[in-house]
Amino acid sequence: MPQTTNSIEGVFTVERKKLADDRGAVFHVMRVDSPEFIAFGETYVSTVKPGTIKAWKKHHVMHQSVTVPVGTVRFVIYDDRPGSPTKGEIQTIEVGETKYRMLRIPPGVWYGFVGIDTTTSVIVNCASIPHDPLEVERLPESTTQIPFDWNEMHGKEQ
Amino acid sequence: MPQTTNSIEGVFTVERKKLADDRGAVFHVMRVDSPEFIAFGETYVSTVKPGTIKAWKKHHVMHQSVTVPVGTVRFVIYDDRPGSPTKGEIQTIEVGETKYRMLRIPPGVWYGFVGIDTTTSVIVNCASIPHDPLEVERLPESTTQIPFDWNEMHGKEQ
Repeated sequence: MPQTTNSIEGVFTVERKKLADDRGAVFHVMRVDSPEFIAFGETYVSTVKPGTIKAWKKHHVMHQSVTVPVGTVRFVIYDDRPGSPTKGEIQTIEVGETKYRMLRIPPGVWYGFVGIDTTTSVIVNCASIPHDPLEVERLPESTTQIPFDWNEMHGKEQ
Repeated sequence: MPQTTNSIEGVFTVERKKLADDRGAVFHVMRVDSPEFIAFGETYVSTVKPGTIKAWKKHHVMHQSVTVPVGTVRFVIYDDRPGSPTKGEIQTIEVGETKYRMLRIPPGVWYGFVGIDTTTSVIVNCASIPHDPLEVERLPESTTQIPFDWNEMHGKEQ
């Protein structure tokens, strides 16, 4: 299974099966025997309207494994982890129903996303722990702590 | 958490949280600490086009926990399990983004479904084992073994 390791340490994408016919499609997300499986905490779905930005969040414990079976979402990830070999880097990754794949967002990095399709996009997250507000940090969309401007969206696509 | 036990033994629905705002929504599917959690095998997504029928299947081992965060799907379940107190019964259940809830389909029953929204519906299944073709049985949509006519769709809504 081809795996793409992008610039930020711990972030990667991996192809997932999409089996389509004229009735609909089946999209794989995560199996207990997938090489990338860590632990099962929670599965939930987020929908994001076109052009809508949800940012920023950082999980201290949760490993996220996300796919986008409907629409397309641009994720932006920022690494400010002390000691990380990619500290200071910004990475943007588009995930969607075409070129269907899973994105791993490790704990410790800041991330946000924007719906970039003409319709509402659907994100499925198979997370390593259940949601716990105590392990989540947030920053506003516009913050001096993260060198990324959602209005300019200049990040290089991986 | 209110749980509805419907007519067929082992089939039930349970409310799940849907947190919507003007940017989109978050839909809970399953947590490791949910009372209905059995085991994590696989999370996958199925989409079904309007009016499209997918039937019939029976899993011999897999417990399915399905939600429909986009659109609406009518599930039809048939119990032919020897010794089941509900042997011979047909049950239809609508699951969708309004009155959002999770449907448990236990192993051993026949089931099928049809997309009944005007747009493609999205089904998320958090299954107790990963997909294994050896534990799945299939029958054609029209079969004398199951007393249900998809063209008449006369099942009583629960």
